[in-house]
Amino acid sequence: MKRIVFILSVFLSCHVFAAVRMPELKWSVSYSADKQLSQGKEIPAIVPGAVQLDIARAENYPPYVFNDNYKQYGWMEDMYYTYKTQFKKPVLSSSERLYFVSKGIDYQFEIYLNGEKLFYQEGMFTYVNLDLTDKLQPDNSLQILIYPVPKKQKTPVDRSQAAHVVKPAVSYGWDWHPRLVPLGIWDDTYLEKRNVSHIDDVFVKYVLSDKFDKANIELAIEGRNLDDCSFSWTLKNKEGKNVLRRQGKLSEHSLLEGIEFRNPELWWSYDHGTPYLYTSVFELKDKKGKSIQKITEKIGFRRVRLVMNEGAWDEPEDFPKGRSVPPAQLELNGRKIFAKGTNWVNPEIFPGIITRERYNELIDLAVEANFNMFRIWGGGIVNKESFFELCDEKGILVWEEFPLSCNLYPDEPHYLSILKQEATSIVKRLRKHPCLAMWCGGNELFNNWSLMTDQSLPLRLLNSICLEYDPLVPYNPTSPLYGMAHGCYIFKYFDGREVFEAMNNAHNTAYTEFGMPGISPMEVLKQIIPENQLFPPKPNTAWQEHHAFGAWAGDTWLCPDILNEYFGQATSLEELIAQSQLMQSEGYKAIYEEARRQKPYCSMALNWCYNEPWPAAVNNSLLVYPAIAKPAFYAVSNSCRPFCTSARLSKFVWNEGEEFFAEIWLLNDKYEKICPGKLRIKLQAGNETIEILTWDTPTTEKNTNLAGPTARFKLPKWTVDRFKLILEVDENPEYNSEYTLLYRPKPEPKEKGTAILNMNN
Amino acid sequence: MKRIVFILSVFLSCHVFAAVRMPELKWSVSYSADKQLSQGKEIPAIVPGAVQLDIARAENYPPYVFNDNYKQYGWMEDMYYTYKTQFKKPVLSSSERLYFVSKGIDYQFEIYLNGEKLFYQEGMFTYVNLDLTDKLQPDNSLQILIYPVPKKQKTPVDRSQAAHVVKPAVSYGWDWHPRLVPLGIWDDTYLEKRNVSHIDDVFVKYVLSDKFDKANIELAIEGRNLDDCSFSWTLKNKEGKNVLRRQGKLSEHSLLEGIEFRNPELWWSYDHGTPYLYTSVFELKDKKGKSIQKITEKIGFRRVRLVMNEGAWDEPEDFPKGRSVPPAQLELNGRKIFAKGTNWVNPEIFPGIITRERYNELIDLAVEANFNMFRIWGGGIVNKESFFELCDEKGILVWEEFPLSCNLYPDEPHYLSILKQEATSIVKRLRKHPCLAMWCGGNELFNNWSLMTDQSLPLRLLNSICLEYDPLVPYNPTSPLYGMAHGCYIFKYFDGREVFEAMNNAHNTAYTEFGMPGISPMEVLKQIIPENQLFPPKPNTAWQEHHAFGAWAGDTWLCPDILNEYFGQATSLEELIAQSQLMQSEGYKAIYEEARRQKPYCSMALNWCYNEPWPAAVNNSLLVYPAIAKPAFYAVSNSCRPFCTSARLSKFVWNEGEEFFAEIWLLNDKYEKICPGKLRIKLQAGNETIEILTWDTPTTEKNTNLAGPTARFKLPKWTVDRFKLILEVDENPEYNSEYTLLYRPKPEPKEKGTAILNMNN
Repeated sequence: MKRIVFILSVFLSCHVFAAVRMPELKWSVSYSADKQLSQGKEIPAIVPGAVQLDIARAENYPPYVFNDNYKQYGWMEDMYYTYKTQFKKPVLSSSERLYFVSKGIDYQFEIYLNGEKLFYQEGMFTYVNLDLTDKLQPDNSLQILIYPVPKKQKTPVDRSQAAHVVKPAVSYGWDWHPRLVPLGIWDDTYLEKRNVSHIDDVFVKYVLSDKFDKANIELAIEGRNLDDCSFSWTLKNKEGKNVLRRQGKLSEHSLLEGIEFRNPELWWSYDHGTPYLYTSVFELKDKKGKSIQKITEKIGFRRVRLVMNEGAWDEPEDFPKGRSVPPAQLELNGRKIFAKGTNWVNPEIFPGIITRERYNELIDLAVEANFNMFRIWGGGIVNKESFFELCDEKGILVWEEFPLSCNLYPDEPHYLSILKQEATSIVKRLRKHPCLAMWCGGNELFNNWSLMTDQSLPLRLLNSICLEYDPLVPYNPTSPLYGMAHGCYIFKYFDGREVFEAMNNAHNTAYTEFGMPGISPMEVLKQIIPENQLFPPKPNTAWQEHHAFGAWAGDTWLCPDILNEYFGQATSLEELIAQSQLMQSEGYKAIYEEARRQKPYCSMALNWCYNEPWPAAVNNSLLVYPAIAKPAFYAVSNSCRPFCTSARLSKFVWNEGEEFFAEIWLLNDKYEKICPGKLRIKLQAGNETIEILTWDTPTTEKNTNLAGPTARFKLPKWTVDRFKLILEVDENPEYNSEYTLLYRPKPEPKEKGTAILNMNN
Repeated sequence: MKRIVFILSVFLSCHVFAAVRMPELKWSVSYSADKQLSQGKEIPAIVPGAVQLDIARAENYPPYVFNDNYKQYGWMEDMYYTYKTQFKKPVLSSSERLYFVSKGIDYQFEIYLNGEKLFYQEGMFTYVNLDLTDKLQPDNSLQILIYPVPKKQKTPVDRSQAAHVVKPAVSYGWDWHPRLVPLGIWDDTYLEKRNVSHIDDVFVKYVLSDKFDKANIELAIEGRNLDDCSFSWTLKNKEGKNVLRRQGKLSEHSLLEGIEFRNPELWWSYDHGTPYLYTSVFELKDKKGKSIQKITEKIGFRRVRLVMNEGAWDEPEDFPKGRSVPPAQLELNGRKIFAKGTNWVNPEIFPGIITRERYNELIDLAVEANFNMFRIWGGGIVNKESFFELCDEKGILVWEEFPLSCNLYPDEPHYLSILKQEATSIVKRLRKHPCLAMWCGGNELFNNWSLMTDQSLPLRLLNSICLEYDPLVPYNPTSPLYGMAHGCYIFKYFDGREVFEAMNNAHNTAYTEFGMPGISPMEVLKQIIPENQLFPPKPNTAWQEHHAFGAWAGDTWLCPDILNEYFGQATSLEELIAQSQLMQSEGYKAIYEEARRQKPYCSMALNWCYNEPWPAAVNNSLLVYPAIAKPAFYAVSNSCRPFCTSARLSKFVWNEGEEFFAEIWLLNDKYEKICPGKLRIKLQAGNETIEILTWDTPTTEKNTNLAGPTARFKLPKWTVDRFKLILEVDENPEYNSEYTLLYRPKPEPKEKGTAILNMNN
């Protein structure tokens, strides 16, 4: 989009468009241990980017993804950086001003023009709009002084160092993210000529009627020197046809109310309809009626709510009685929809290099995974505009968290003032996107590893800001809430419960994080682990740097004990990868499908996590950096089909002679009926396939699951170590499902005497 | 207070005090079925009061407390009322203005001067300050047109009719409140001369340092025409000595910052220290330095927080894992205190007649009950100033709810705008009182009889208003929350559990409502029930009108089935009253003491309810209208002693031959150690007293309970139907406790054959 706007403004007359982007700036960067505009060596800087990447490029650092190379970047945290660019004063008419614009500078910085300090900001999410005009000289030097990485304390060197700033905590180190803390200019940054009268923001605010047949629109305009200006506003449909038009006089901070739009096409997530987008064209005119600025934006009409989960009002039952759970059922345009999705993390360690194309491939894969929602996890950044534009276009719902995660963010006035500034900027930017389905204060803040509570002022403040600027979109203080859950994260728990048991006994309105680790593919491992360390994986090697050991509880994320218990010692890396990836696939299937089976009480299943910012050796992610699908990706995609067959399993390992059983289900999230059919339940061991049950399935009603019969079969003697449960639908193979399970033959009988002794125990 | 200010201003020169209250106004009231300034008969009105009381007085209505007389007032709901008063224009200098002031007009009204409409307001909690000066004539007629009772719908005729207004829902009918909906002028209302330059509000805002050795003070001043004015501000201690003084220039909405006050005496609840109050004297001076207004207010320095309950961060344990509970542990000036208290309801059906004296007697009784907290239940009014002044003085903490209760208050713009106006007025008024310990959105809003959720805009708005105007005092959206509980309310549940079992198995951070019904004393019953209906109590008589039948679930509040089961059919009203009052006493003791025993995880015990607005026949209240203590009052007062002995019982009825047992405890909420002693545990049946255990109690640490031995005793054959468990402390009888229990002799042996048969079962 950005590029297109730029081209347009070159082709069209400057008289028509006030906002004219100047030619791209060339930047350098230098650093200094002290707080000063650096006198050091100037190296070329790529903007947007990060100072670390510029230094690495200039000084030939080895790639940070390999082994423990990222540690070589550690010293860069504590430097001051000076970005510098030079430009000639452009020709400006008396009604023109020159602005310096940046959509993101990370994190604390000062801006100097020709040596004079013009601006200071703490906060990377508030755009800079700086009028340079009165300070311009024929030749200009613009410098940006970036402060070192903010740290609440020197030690411990971990995420708690970020507990006082509105900067993503993840880069301070996480169980799947190395310690690498970006600094620098991280989003579009340029000079722009603007008319002295100009618009800063057009917000098309609307309220849909209860029947969705009317949108009551207000235009909230922010700008400068608008007193004598007039405007025209046009709403165009997808075909470019004008469907609504208003014009009139303007004044500053004008709110143009009472615009009624009948029968709007609604914006839907792609799985429930069309993500219909209109185009809003706002034209600013001077007192002579001459057009001086045109702002073109996509808008979508939708109503999103969190409503009570079915059955949840009936709980709790007995006195003494507490409250009912908070609602977690997403309702889009009056339709209750099951949110199947995933937790999105920064797709790059350095967000400055994230492009629209990177977003695009990841979002396209989410559609392939049958996901309709991203939870934008609060440990990471608030994404760039192109992310939301793409979610708008492709019809993916976004649960947006503020940058608070797993820390005790304080009730202190300074932090609260920066949070207010940043959150206000974030909400005013993102509220325009129909994909925005939910605001959330941050990640896991009401647990004992964070220690925030309902009384924490940062979360009360965020609630208040969301209420002020986007009152019709839900706000939650954190995830999990009462009745929601995070976990499972491993296949078998420390207390011996397998994922099947843990999930089948859980009772939650939403599973908003759950993980299952899987090793990355061989070709990725070879890019990150020295060859001599590849097999067997050991602690304190590149495996550990890439999160295989010592990452989370126990020996995560490799979980060698669990793999050993199920499969015995692997004899090659290929074998180990296959074991781990199988566990990941089967584990994720168990969780997603059980969450779906718990519908309608349960209404959400979002796994941890979708992607990763660098190639981990083992991670819960479905995608390996940059966007390589693990086998679990396809398994999950199947489990999330709008309609599919499903088996409710109780465990992973089955023994010879034991009665195998599985509850058979039909899962339907579609708002349409599924016709009757014939479902064959089979067991496959090696070449042998046995049909153990045939179910003549009835009609499955819209958005309804159907619990079918339990298939049972006494397991014979097989010579395999695993077998498959296969659900096959005659004539509709797209509904088929299958599950891989482990098989244990009866142990050879022990010596007789011992056996008898055992029997007497 | 008010009266004193008035006298002062008469004695002192008008030049010195701008705000001079004019002589009391004489009011009349008339009514009309239509919306018009009524032409009907004018009857004398008492202001403050209620239109219903004026009509009843003028037209000789029988007392509404008797039988079903209150129903005769029903027609008054739907009338328009016109209050009228006449006054001569007072002498006004060029710098003087005449204001009409009212602290409360219920609920929707218009104000007319000499037939011209000057003002309209919806909302009974926002003071009216109306400058009449420019409209005055030599002789003036002031009229107030009161709208009928607001009703969301015609039927059902119940509290849901109040679901769209900021008017207490209780008067629309409750299980302990008749349907009688007040209308009219309900708080102080007068004419006042003010200088054209005057102060409307002085807010002494402060933040205490972490060590409580410093208060950083700001004065937030609101007023009119202050541009050329100056001020002096003095803080005086209890002895009247100036401890702080500031003076300087003023401007409108001025905020005088950076005033440091060292070593403030802190305000404490009476049970933990002295409720120390300073006096703030703010003097406004004109440009010549002449004093034109003096505002004198009490202020107290305290910090109040809700912090996490001990042990609550360790929950939940397993994955999938939700959040930890919200904090319910009150911390006053850094000290964790156990909140023992009660739910306060309107002390009158017509709040207009509540006086400082009524508040005073009720608050004094709360101190006698060893209560340190009132929960001001959201079904009722926000109390008048004198209530909070008295709580400040006497050191009782106040949990203040907004007027929302058991309804689905809507997300509609009109309701939200009135709620915003009213809540802002309420918070700006009450935040000045050190007794204010907690804000709460309202009562039981997150349960299925209300259907509000965390997403409800009214509750998000209240959070936002409290954050803006009183950020350092906790805010909760409702009660109960997750981890807190309402109930028990009856001695034996429908599922057979007795209060002992229900409480002993409960696990909550706070019991913020629990009830136990008890019949009112005979002399009260005779005032409300016709003599021929007194015994036996029957449904559809005056007993039912006074909440004995059909009030809440089952046959509440009389609970004849439960009484019958325990005591058999009562043969007289005296006997029935005694049975009911015994159950109430023993039930309340069980709950308060078990809640205390669950400390430190549990931190609050507030019973439902303290007082009542009219004499009920049976109610959970400890006090009968107006302020008559039931036996349960004294029982509860004992259970709430800062230090006492306590027995954990498992049931109410014990059988001959059974092994009686009771866990013996020492409960200490004091922040001081209690010395070792000798505790004798005795059973008393008739004249016989048996010592069943002696416990040499060790030192009880401050704010710590001590679980002692379990006393056991095989119950012999007695000829009584009840017995007492007595805990006696040698030399400290003030720590003694006792419990009355029921005794059942062994049934006479049945025919031999049957007995043998039973044994074989």
